[in-house]
Amino acid sequence: MRILGIDPGLRTLGWGVIEVDGSRLRHVANGLCKPGGTELAERLLNLHVLLTEVFREMAPDEAAVEKTFVNRDGAGTLKLGQARAIALLVPAQFGLTIGEYAPNSVKKTVVGVGHAEKHQVEHMVNLQLPGANPAGPDAADALAIAICHAHHMGTRRMKVRA
Amino acid sequence: MRILGIDPGLRTLGWGVIEVDGSRLRHVANGLCKPGGTELAERLLNLHVLLTEVFREMAPDEAAVEKTFVNRDGAGTLKLGQARAIALLVPAQFGLTIGEYAPNSVKKTVVGVGHAEKHQVEHMVNLQLPGANPAGPDAADALAIAICHAHHMGTRRMKVRA
Repeated sequence: MRILGIDPGLRTLGWGVIEVDGSRLRHVANGLCKPGGTELAERLLNLHVLLTEVFREMAPDEAAVEKTFVNRDGAGTLKLGQARAIALLVPAQFGLTIGEYAPNSVKKTVVGVGHAEKHQVEHMVNLQLPGANPAGPDAADALAIAICHAHHMGTRRMKVRA
Repeated sequence: MRILGIDPGLRTLGWGVIEVDGSRLRHVANGLCKPGGTELAERLLNLHVLLTEVFREMAPDEAAVEKTFVNRDGAGTLKLGQARAIALLVPAQFGLTIGEYAPNSVKKTVVGVGHAEKHQVEHMVNLQLPGANPAGPDAADALAIAICHAHHMGTRRMKVRA
């Protein structure tokens, strides 16, 4: 089972792919999509093209996306919402199941606490996925989201068996 | 010159097409896209499919989209941002120029005042586009956005000539 995790963003979108075999996780690839363009529509189009290419190349079985944090900065929320729309649209166009996880839930799964620092997440991702060497903090986050999805999948299966 | 106006929304997206010949405007078609689905990704996918179909059928030369209003309701802003991403992505995928207009600017152009009521907008749309008979308030708004784009195009041309 191959999972593609996405950390959405309009300037930099992080992605990470892991292979899950029972309780074993293996790193496959990770990277960043940096859509160029000055106009919003151009950025969204470029992001859609880049992310579609990643899905085509990586051929994941499931996808996982970080839930957007609604904060007091309306303009920031709007931008994140637009990036997230593309992050949800592309896997849906490939007919994939999409898991959505709040940032705190991802941190709790990967680091053990909900309020972990960014560098702790990166450290734990490298421990759990030897050789991952993330392309940047956003790619590390994306791998953490994929790990989170793998754990939740495991829990779902155990519940079904019980 | 054919203009397709869009009033973005995740439950109901309004669209309206007009034909511009110099200063003359003619109504072509209008309608509503109502994407079904319980999951957000499913809704975004359905919206993308429906709006792509409208663009394919209507073959507009340019598109115009209402600028999203950032308000204090973070969750609402996020939803609108996601709908707007699709409303910008589809015309960009068709290689079209996209005009963006704030709601007040649309009302000012169509009704004459920035704080017009919804029914005034619908009334003026029907006056300026005889026989339009909008499919609903969102379709009337979309036609108003298309009219606004036509007027701004005219202004741009006059400025170039002056």
